[in-house]
Amino acid sequence: MSKQQIGVVGMAVMGKNLALNIESRGYSVSVFNRSGSKTEQVIAENPGKKLVPTFTIEEFVDSLEKPRRIMMMVKAGEATDKTIQSLLPHLDKGDVLIDGGNTFYKDTIRRSKELENSGINFIGTGVSGGEEGALKGPSIMPGGQKEAYDLVAPILEKISAKAPDGEPCVAYIGKDGAGHYVKMVHNGIEYGDMQLIAEAYDIMHKYLGMSVEEIAAVFIEWNKGELDSFLIDITADILTKYDPETGKPMVDIILDRAGNKGTGKWTSQSALDVGVPLPLITESVFARYISALKDERVAASKVLPQPAAVDMSKVDKKAFIENIRKGLYFSKIMSYAQGFAQMRVASEENDWDLNYGEIAKIWRAGCIIRAQFLQNITDAYEKNPALQNLLLDDYFVNITKDYQGAVREVVATAVVAGVPVPTFSSAVAYFDSYRSAVLPANIIQAQRDYFGAHTYERTDKAGTYHFEWDKEVEVPQD
Amino acid sequence: MSKQQIGVVGMAVMGKNLALNIESRGYSVSVFNRSGSKTEQVIAENPGKKLVPTFTIEEFVDSLEKPRRIMMMVKAGEATDKTIQSLLPHLDKGDVLIDGGNTFYKDTIRRSKELENSGINFIGTGVSGGEEGALKGPSIMPGGQKEAYDLVAPILEKISAKAPDGEPCVAYIGKDGAGHYVKMVHNGIEYGDMQLIAEAYDIMHKYLGMSVEEIAAVFIEWNKGELDSFLIDITADILTKYDPETGKPMVDIILDRAGNKGTGKWTSQSALDVGVPLPLITESVFARYISALKDERVAASKVLPQPAAVDMSKVDKKAFIENIRKGLYFSKIMSYAQGFAQMRVASEENDWDLNYGEIAKIWRAGCIIRAQFLQNITDAYEKNPALQNLLLDDYFVNITKDYQGAVREVVATAVVAGVPVPTFSSAVAYFDSYRSAVLPANIIQAQRDYFGAHTYERTDKAGTYHFEWDKEVEVPQD
Repeated sequence: MSKQQIGVVGMAVMGKNLALNIESRGYSVSVFNRSGSKTEQVIAENPGKKLVPTFTIEEFVDSLEKPRRIMMMVKAGEATDKTIQSLLPHLDKGDVLIDGGNTFYKDTIRRSKELENSGINFIGTGVSGGEEGALKGPSIMPGGQKEAYDLVAPILEKISAKAPDGEPCVAYIGKDGAGHYVKMVHNGIEYGDMQLIAEAYDIMHKYLGMSVEEIAAVFIEWNKGELDSFLIDITADILTKYDPETGKPMVDIILDRAGNKGTGKWTSQSALDVGVPLPLITESVFARYISALKDERVAASKVLPQPAAVDMSKVDKKAFIENIRKGLYFSKIMSYAQGFAQMRVASEENDWDLNYGEIAKIWRAGCIIRAQFLQNITDAYEKNPALQNLLLDDYFVNITKDYQGAVREVVATAVVAGVPVPTFSSAVAYFDSYRSAVLPANIIQAQRDYFGAHTYERTDKAGTYHFEWDKEVEVPQD
Repeated sequence: MSKQQIGVVGMAVMGKNLALNIESRGYSVSVFNRSGSKTEQVIAENPGKKLVPTFTIEEFVDSLEKPRRIMMMVKAGEATDKTIQSLLPHLDKGDVLIDGGNTFYKDTIRRSKELENSGINFIGTGVSGGEEGALKGPSIMPGGQKEAYDLVAPILEKISAKAPDGEPCVAYIGKDGAGHYVKMVHNGIEYGDMQLIAEAYDIMHKYLGMSVEEIAAVFIEWNKGELDSFLIDITADILTKYDPETGKPMVDIILDRAGNKGTGKWTSQSALDVGVPLPLITESVFARYISALKDERVAASKVLPQPAAVDMSKVDKKAFIENIRKGLYFSKIMSYAQGFAQMRVASEENDWDLNYGEIAKIWRAGCIIRAQFLQNITDAYEKNPALQNLLLDDYFVNITKDYQGAVREVVATAVVAGVPVPTFSSAVAYFDSYRSAVLPANIIQAQRDYFGAHTYERTDKAGTYHFEWDKEVEVPQD
């Protein structure tokens, strides 16, 4: 019996779809699932495909060409460790194990080390695009040994999404946890993008008093310009759907309590660890947490005050909508600048040597944050691979020149009108902090030195100093 | 030879000062330090005190009354574990070991379990107030076995700070890590308070163009009212100090690059873990991170645009300063509401049964965030111990009614003028989110269901649902 070219473990929807995607590119695929009935079901539902069902780990491993290529698509966490443990006794040196789950990057670093001791190659890869992406072409972010990547690169390139210029949305990211780290930041950015869109909708809805239909038309329009992206596109689509039961717009039927799977949280926690400011994404994570407090909010809405009524008579609605569009683009740029700065510092700390232009490139298709504007990020890093912050690139400098007035007006207006804009306002605060040669952190350093003798640096010479704050120092005579 | 009533390990400044504080209340104290020279120095510098120097662990432990009471004041982390390991073989069941370091609460939970197995009582306690507090009276937040606390309570009450009404600033917080957790949140709140003050200074400095002297006068005035607190007081004091070398105000000599010891970061990371929105403190941590990027900021200030010039001719300076004061108080309330909400959820998760009114009470003196307004928090929780969020208490509802207009104006003005206000604006966003019966999280849930089949809840009935977004659903005919 001939051997299969690759194996997939885990026949839940992501694993099944990825196996079907691989098979559709001309590869023979062994499949395995902990409970065999699921394997049988997948085979029964997909007749005539080069999918070979296996029902024991031994049979599965034995069915594969050497060096074996095994893709694990199991629930991130314990299941990943268990799957590795069950496979390990049957593998040979040089085999390549791939974890395609939404794994925490530190787990990938740990597993990579453990498997290296057994001579097994390990790739931890981000796979973005949801169920449909897995089937038709996801964005793939693989990390691990370069030589192991080379063994699976032809397959990954074939199954990945293709950017508008035809390039496959996969590239070698870096060693051990690099791929899962980049996927984590991708997800954090996704949280930020979604919250920014939600706030843009909310301003139109609550401040401008627009109907769902009117807002849908705006998003359809926006998707034709700079904001062209998957998330803007599906938002437009969502706003045109009606609930068959009640006839109401779907968005008026859906409860405003947002869930999360923790990857946004990880991104914020990692930013806090590496010492990189990531306020926008973090505000978006907290916005989901506040949304979850539905009962508390309803109770609070009855006792906490409304802002004073706003005179809307002189508002130029069309002009204001354009300001929201500019504000959204401006804020999105702040978010990406923060996320890329985080990757830069994490790359230095973990010795990953990340290629930021390449990362933006493979996000151009297949993944949730795919957008036209990623090309501008790629261009910026191709011009200057050592760019410290996206905001220092000419294209982005010019956007901030043209759009800062608009975003300031939108935030100031929303703040006065009482429409919550945690990420829009955080974007402005980041911009104004980052472009400030002088911040009031001198006050904080003075306080720290005052109560804790933590010392400070001086503006006029090097070194650290402590001031005797309780000694009276006289005001100098001019 | 008679035995001493308590022992202190670690003769760095905090340990030394705490030992002197205990001794000054009439207790006999054994002291020990890893390097004996430091112990000798402390003894030499403090003649005539009931401090008994010891130079081996055996001698130290043997010098104490049973059950022994031992306070460790060593650098949090590895040194704490090493100290415990060196003491453990010499201790008896029922002895009480106290860790007074700035320890991460999860380490305290772990150590508490480990020591319980050996029959040793363990107290992890927050000690706030810096060097001076340790010597004259800190705020103390002890967690551990209640019966162990009772053995040390008389000493802790005597050495603690006293609130204006004479009550000692110490109370039993809860089991295992409760004390260190509460101290961690205290420090997070401290980060928020300091950043809020820095922003208030910055608005006066950059927007109103006030001199350091003028701003000092404002802080002196503010400290007479609702904002009366240690941090406002020392800020006023700081602003009146001059550099002897240059004759310039100290704040103009101190570099605007803020350091941190990680406790603010821990607070934010824990909030992210327990799912509680803590945006203000987190923005203050990120503000320190941005401040640290001094070179990048100076470079960015040269290429990124300034906002349009603001017409200052009609600004009523005095009225605007009063708005900043109101905005600062309003924002401070948002920060404490968030911090106390975090403690509530952490208490439920860890089974700590925290007493929030008591916690606010013991922060009224001795610690860095001591302030008149903590009494209002105590009052709120004494009225309703089950209060879900401080903002729902009458006193705070009324402040928001009176001050929301002011804070909105300050934030809107700063945003337009380009003065970075990450925490002021985050405070408004939190307030507006929390008082919103409906948030745009319905858009986020729709998106998540669209691309990931994550399901959503409905506004009109219970259950979770998935919508077939790609099926065309017709617009209903009226």
